[in-house]
Amino acid sequence: MIVAIASDHAALELKAELVRWLGEQGHEIADLGPHSEGSVDYPDYGYRLAGYLSRGEATYGIALCGSGVGIAIAMNRHPDVRCAQVAEPLSAALARSHNDANAIALGARLVGPEMAKACVAAFLSTEFLGGRHQRRVEQLSHPKLTEETA
Amino acid sequence: MIVAIASDHAALELKAELVRWLGEQGHEIADLGPHSEGSVDYPDYGYRLAGYLSRGEATYGIALCGSGVGIAIAMNRHPDVRCAQVAEPLSAALARSHNDANAIALGARLVGPEMAKACVAAFLSTEFLGGRHQRRVEQLSHPKLTEETA
Repeated sequence: MIVAIASDHAALELKAELVRWLGEQGHEIADLGPHSEGSVDYPDYGYRLAGYLSRGEATYGIALCGSGVGIAIAMNRHPDVRCAQVAEPLSAALARSHNDANAIALGARLVGPEMAKACVAAFLSTEFLGGRHQRRVEQLSHPKLTEETA
Repeated sequence: MIVAIASDHAALELKAELVRWLGEQGHEIADLGPHSEGSVDYPDYGYRLAGYLSRGEATYGIALCGSGVGIAIAMNRHPDVRCAQVAEPLSAALARSHNDANAIALGARLVGPEMAKACVAAFLSTEFLGGRHQRRVEQLSHPKLTEETA
């Protein structure tokens, strides 16, 4: 199982810490950058990671920016990506069990490195429950963006 | 300014509480449902609220489900919507100031009603900063979903 990770400049240190920690646990990591300091735009890296997941090059994605907000929005533009913005492990686990999320977004300026690891651990160790949740997950892959208000 | 709100069955009580509270503050509210108990699918209500915002029928949206994860993903399928899944007011404020978010998602099973109100209050009272954030927000409206990994 390959775990892909991407960030913006605000989360470079957290990305490095998570790459090291995931590697210690034997996960295969794809670090999609950035690979140097300097300001970048979070949508670029969110779209890069979303495309990577969509093409099946990794099973799960970890998306990082300052607050987690911006890169989560970018990731979820892709109908194949279900990215949960989380700050504690319960939401990360529910994102897997109820939403079959294939990515989580974390805010490096809001979530400390040990809490971030707890979120990633909960995310990677929780199975999707299926059942009634399956229909809703399928609806996320076929968005009805022109639906009129009832 | 119109604030639109939608939920799934798990967040009906929180929706009613927020509608009442926003009304007391003089906001005009569009309650997009559900309007009765019974299980519904969060993508339906997320797409309904996203379309409503996209058509300019409301300025801001509040999206509610059990965890906030699922309805936030549904909302962000729409390129005109920038929905931040939040559980505390700082993220709600950053979503406005940095990401020009036009919606927040809250999880009724994870966030209590007073914390939810604090999130909504921070969201509605914070201005977008523009500047370097503007370019990134524009990139969220024109997703590059086929971008190859560098």
